[in-house]
Amino acid sequence: MEDVQNHTPAIALNIDRVGIRRLKSPLLVRDRKDGKQQTVAQIDMGVDLPSAFKGTHMSRFVEELEAWNDEISYQSMRRLLENIKKCLGAQRAYVHFCFPYFIRKSAPASGSSSFVPYECRLTGELDEERQSFLLDVDVPVMTVCPCSKAISHEGAHSQRAIVRMSIRMTGFSWIEEFIEIAEKSGSSAVYTLLKREDEKFVTEHAFANPRFVEDVVRNVAQRLSAHEHVAWFRVEVESIESIHSHNAFASIERTCK
Amino acid sequence: MEDVQNHTPAIALNIDRVGIRRLKSPLLVRDRKDGKQQTVAQIDMGVDLPSAFKGTHMSRFVEELEAWNDEISYQSMRRLLENIKKCLGAQRAYVHFCFPYFIRKSAPASGSSSFVPYECRLTGELDEERQSFLLDVDVPVMTVCPCSKAISHEGAHSQRAIVRMSIRMTGFSWIEEFIEIAEKSGSSAVYTLLKREDEKFVTEHAFANPRFVEDVVRNVAQRLSAHEHVAWFRVEVESIESIHSHNAFASIERTCK
Amino acid sequence: MEDVQNHTPAIALNIDRVGIRRLKSPLLVRDRKDGKQQTVAQIDMGVDLPSAFKGTHMSRFVEELEAWNDEISYQSMRRLLENIKKCLGAQRAYVHFCFPYFIRKSAPASGSSSFVPYECRLTGELDEERQSFLLDVDVPVMTVCPCSKAISHEGAHSQRAIVRMSIRMTGFSWIEEFIEIAEKSGSSAVYTLLKREDEKFVTEHAFANPRFVEDVVRNVAQRLSAHEHVAWFRVEVESIESIHSHNAFASIERTCK
Amino acid sequence: MEDVQNHTPAIALNIDRVGIRRLKSPLLVRDRKDGKQQTVAQIDMGVDLPSAFKGTHMSRFVEELEAWNDEISYQSMRRLLENIKKCLGAQRAYVHFCFPYFIRKSAPASGSSSFVPYECRLTGELDEERQSFLLDVDVPVMTVCPCSKAISHEGAHSQRAIVRMSIRMTGFSWIEEFIEIAEKSGSSAVYTLLKREDEKFVTEHAFANPRFVEDVVRNVAQRLSAHEHVAWFRVEVESIESIHSHNAFASIERTCK
Repeated sequence: MEDVQNHTPAIALNIDRVGIRRLKSPLLVRDRKDGKQQTVAQIDMGVDLPSAFKGTHMSRFVEELEAWNDEISYQSMRRLLENIKKCLGAQRAYVHFCFPYFIRKSAPASGSSSFVPYECRLTGELDEERQSFLLDVDVPVMTVCPCSKAISHEGAHSQRAIVRMSIRMTGFSWIEEFIEIAEKSGSSAVYTLLKREDEKFVTEHAFANPRFVEDVVRNVAQRLSAHEHVAWFRVEVESIESIHSHNAFASIERTCK
Repeated sequence: MEDVQNHTPAIALNIDRVGIRRLKSPLLVRDRKDGKQQTVAQIDMGVDLPSAFKGTHMSRFVEELEAWNDEISYQSMRRLLENIKKCLGAQRAYVHFCFPYFIRKSAPASGSSSFVPYECRLTGELDEERQSFLLDVDVPVMTVCPCSKAISHEGAHSQRAIVRMSIRMTGFSWIEEFIEIAEKSGSSAVYTLLKREDEKFVTEHAFANPRFVEDVVRNVAQRLSAHEHVAWFRVEVESIESIHSHNAFASIERTCK
Repeated sequence: MEDVQNHTPAIALNIDRVGIRRLKSPLLVRDRKDGKQQTVAQIDMGVDLPSAFKGTHMSRFVEELEAWNDEISYQSMRRLLENIKKCLGAQRAYVHFCFPYFIRKSAPASGSSSFVPYECRLTGELDEERQSFLLDVDVPVMTVCPCSKAISHEGAHSQRAIVRMSIRMTGFSWIEEFIEIAEKSGSSAVYTLLKREDEKFVTEHAFANPRFVEDVVRNVAQRLSAHEHVAWFRVEVESIESIHSHNAFASIERTCK
Repeated sequence: MEDVQNHTPAIALNIDRVGIRRLKSPLLVRDRKDGKQQTVAQIDMGVDLPSAFKGTHMSRFVEELEAWNDEISYQSMRRLLENIKKCLGAQRAYVHFCFPYFIRKSAPASGSSSFVPYECRLTGELDEERQSFLLDVDVPVMTVCPCSKAISHEGAHSQRAIVRMSIRMTGFSWIEEFIEIAEKSGSSAVYTLLKREDEKFVTEHAFANPRFVEDVVRNVAQRLSAHEHVAWFRVEVESIESIHSHNAFASIERTCK
């Protein structure tokens, strides 16, 4: 059968990246407490394509993913990227996994435990020389507005806010470490299960620690800068303002080492 | 050219509804203050199809919409539904418009004005005898938790909540009337522009009126029941809980007259 | 500590349903081939609330879900619903699980196998007397347009379409049975992994079976009507038209037994 | 009243960008044919914040937007950015508008006309020295697979694909110019209204011009490179594969002058 992909294209331009996107698949992730965790990912995969070829061979991405069938880690992702490069005859390979990750968390007063979900993304790229590896984690927190608290006779508006961290690492770190950094940086962490004594604790703790999105983003940035394995980060905090129908946001990007 | 749609289908089943969906189009809406308002809609249109025909003629929906080109109202929607029925040779016609609607609102203390957006949906259906007409409006409000307030030494968690109303009417009413009902039913309305004195006002007003989603849904239900033109309603309140990463909701459906 | 939820509300109205929504959680599902499958769900849970009580106890939904911790089935869902009713002191309980389900599928010519994802929803409701149980499955298929094929010298436009089935059952059936019904009803099934000989097979098979959304919805409706355990269904087909930027759809709802 | 925003923050870090997000507003856009077009936008606005200040003044973004109230253009956006910088006391200002833009398009055979919607984004940034201005346009097209066509006895799979262009310009160009570039680069343009003779034309035209996502991205890249006002671009094509439930994509980024 004709291999149309190997034809010479009408326009001889190098393509930066070509591949498949929004592929859903089961995924095994490393878990600090339980060793491993079974979740579900949405996956993008791509390679470069030189100007001499009309098309890439899309089915090979799926074959490599099926053959890989591994727990995700820096090492296993490198193996996948190398296999993709070889199988597709490419100079550069790219994979991106987007998945919810669950951590069992205890309520602050009652100790009742439940799962809290965190959206994570792992992105790997491999060219001739080096592999880049990026971790993204989204962490919901609570923020209490310092301005509203200072000027009002009673109360202060609060809301859910999302801390979105992108982190380039120089060595292995657990996703849990970055989630803890974000949760310590808001007015309070959020929980799935809160009994009445926990709700009292969370409310009082949050009101004792009012934070603008600006305060939260600085808190996270300072802690990420101090982390031994963070080479670069970008953090963004977006709060679902309870007094508006639009959101507030703040972002900081830094190269650490 | 062959009219494949008019062929006899392999399976002789009546189809309840067939048509087009997610069509984006400019739309003119009646505005209580300014007479009319130009917005943008996503539109669904459909008809029934008897078992004798293989397919409907999809392009005619677009033609009827183009020919209609009218300000949306009960009367103009009836005209559109009648034209669709006739042009498609149908027993029943259906249209659904989903659009943001903007109201200029003044801040409660400073009086500063700005646009607040509300998601609306208008759904019309016409069969042999009667037209049904459904209005949906989504209104963001602020809720302060009564439990959190009662048990904490200081503060109470608050959040943005969405009041979603579906209303079947017996006579003309402005969208603005239902928005006002929802905004009066939360702990506070939300605003686009709030100066410092407004933020103080909103915070204090909201903390003086703590409301569960259960309280808000009952408030809205009572007010809709008392409205002279509401024949049936369904109201749902969903709050973006600031202490959780999941939401809380409550809903009531009633036939009024 | 004060139990504000048990207060008498200002407005004495029964609430149809109150609870939590968009809770993410790991979920275990029965799998025809492998026994069970670990996936991830988004969950809604609710109960009715009589006019005498100001609020429900939201944390109990999470406690019941944590205590349940079971593989999902008709029986296990009933257990969960009964526990919720008892724990919340309710007349009616409601749960809704939304999750991707994966099936390993072989390509039609090469036999190469890969995972295909299907969005599923399971909804259970329990009142004084009876439990209702609803299964929803979304199945992507390919459609080739019969009109385009009949009138053109060459080719015919094709596209991905989604078959959305809601099914009320009288006895146990596998999700796989309904997926097969949908996949047989389009111009072709879709696959995750297709080698060149498979792409040839799928293209030729699809072009030999051109189908309007009307044809697909009738095919599925006929097959669901003939299924021994289907008491009621609603099926909707929506095609992502390749010649338009809007979609086409058709739907049929029937009570079978 | 206390101005908490002007306090010294606990952590003295510069914030790259802080502001508001997902604000919905009516918007007036320049239209090549009709002079201007009323649409609806989602807007982000931000500034930098020096380490000496705890918070920015979020309400001023809304005030500046209200005061601006202008048709969007390179010049008017510059005015808005300058006003934001001045009013917020910032070194850098940023605005981002996301909106549907409608063009009346004639069907290729019948000449029947209808609106086709295109998602657009305009992003402006102003620092001490210079303004950057980025236009994004998403254009749906049809692609017919060259491989499927070459290897099958009959037919070829086709699908809707989205061409996403990001363009940095050196001088004024109409959005319409870039839409035309994208529409010429697929197997066929898509239309809202197609009569039977148009469907025949589109099908035959598309099958005479089969294109991989790789072909489309190269076609667009070549045409953008040749455009007199394009200084830099990034183009990405994503096709909603009709034979898979995942998508295919290809992207090229180039600095032109």
